[in-house]
Amino acid sequence: MSADPSSRRGIPDATVARLPEYLRALTGFAERGITSVSSEELAAAAGVRSAKLRKDLSHLGSYGVRGVGYEVDHLAYQISRELGLTQDWPVAIVGMGNLGHALAAYSGFATRGFRVVALLDQDCDLIGQEIAGLPVRPMSALADLVAARGLAIGVIATPAASAQDVCDALVDAGVRSILNFAPCVLAVPDGVDVRKVDLSTELQILAFHEQRKALARGSVLVDGSLRRVASE
Amino acid sequence: MSADPSSRRGIPDATVARLPEYLRALTGFAERGITSVSSEELAAAAGVRSAKLRKDLSHLGSYGVRGVGYEVDHLAYQISRELGLTQDWPVAIVGMGNLGHALAAYSGFATRGFRVVALLDQDCDLIGQEIAGLPVRPMSALADLVAARGLAIGVIATPAASAQDVCDALVDAGVRSILNFAPCVLAVPDGVDVRKVDLSTELQILAFHEQRKALARGSVLVDGSLRRVASE
Repeated sequence: MSADPSSRRGIPDATVARLPEYLRALTGFAERGITSVSSEELAAAAGVRSAKLRKDLSHLGSYGVRGVGYEVDHLAYQISRELGLTQDWPVAIVGMGNLGHALAAYSGFATRGFRVVALLDQDCDLIGQEIAGLPVRPMSALADLVAARGLAIGVIATPAASAQDVCDALVDAGVRSILNFAPCVLAVPDGVDVRKVDLSTELQILAFHEQRKALARGSVLVDGSLRRVASE
Repeated sequence: MSADPSSRRGIPDATVARLPEYLRALTGFAERGITSVSSEELAAAAGVRSAKLRKDLSHLGSYGVRGVGYEVDHLAYQISRELGLTQDWPVAIVGMGNLGHALAAYSGFATRGFRVVALLDQDCDLIGQEIAGLPVRPMSALADLVAARGLAIGVIATPAASAQDVCDALVDAGVRSILNFAPCVLAVPDGVDVRKVDLSTELQILAFHEQRKALARGSVLVDGSLRRVASE
């Protein structure tokens, strides 16, 4: 049996931030029926160097087997456990615009241990409507959701102009972890974690590779823009 | 003037993957009116160690000034330039469900140099409708978009069942960079970059901290689930 995460030494934040990448890569291997991977394969799939991967996983007490590598399912379980995903996290999504709709229906949450228990909006026209099997509830339901449903994480999918008010309401109700999709910076008291999602992050990494491919094809950069050069 | 990115030594993929985080952190500082940051402050905001940050930025030829740190605007520009964000990337979004709608209206793309030039869907009822100021076009418009508009990046926001067909159509039309929001693995030929977005990544990092907070409050882990322990 592996060591109980509660008794572990602290895991560096940078390692924690990479664990979801490793889990995503492992899920990809599992989906393709691959049962064991080398540290090099896993590192390549996650976009890190293998030495870094091995060091990160050593914080979890997971070392792989020389010549065999890591068992995909077991390592995925270990990471899930470390991240707290083997238990159930009740989540509320606030803001039922297109993004809130999409998040409410997003199957990737449930498979990661995130159970959407409530959808909220302040728009009277939306309250009571059903989205992805759940009724939209008013913001005044928050305190009750924390007390009765153990609501742990609030997802903000409102426009930027409403996000701070929604954040304050979540904090007042006792929510201590907030995921912010609104394009703005939120102020919270100590003890509350906020993470901001930037949907353009992956596009930026693609742009880097696209630029590199264009340069390899013979374009040049002029004042930060690609220009095609006629070949001789 | 800084060195032209095209003349640089290769930047490690792991560094490239962190550049958007640094840019996001820098944008946060700029939004709060902060004009210079120490490597420690920037590293903390981006969730990495400062030694790692300094090493990453040294690949860009950016070293900061002892006792002063980095100039926020200039470093943001250097990273943007490195990522290819100082030029304009024409993007098409395929799949006009809730997620596609949300992405079409997402202001974070334009501020990063990504210009949504086309929205596509195969649903005849949607084609011709206007979303976020653009008409929805049929998949048959793809080849023309690549030739006439320089379409560089395709964003797949369809259900998983359609994603591979859409991906094949994008590749056939000449698109070489694909961002996949559908919860499935895509097969592509060599020379095509695919990145998969997992909207639950940040939730997973929050769950880790939430679990740690719960353990600090005196809960214990039993078989991977948190249990509250009655205090004496």
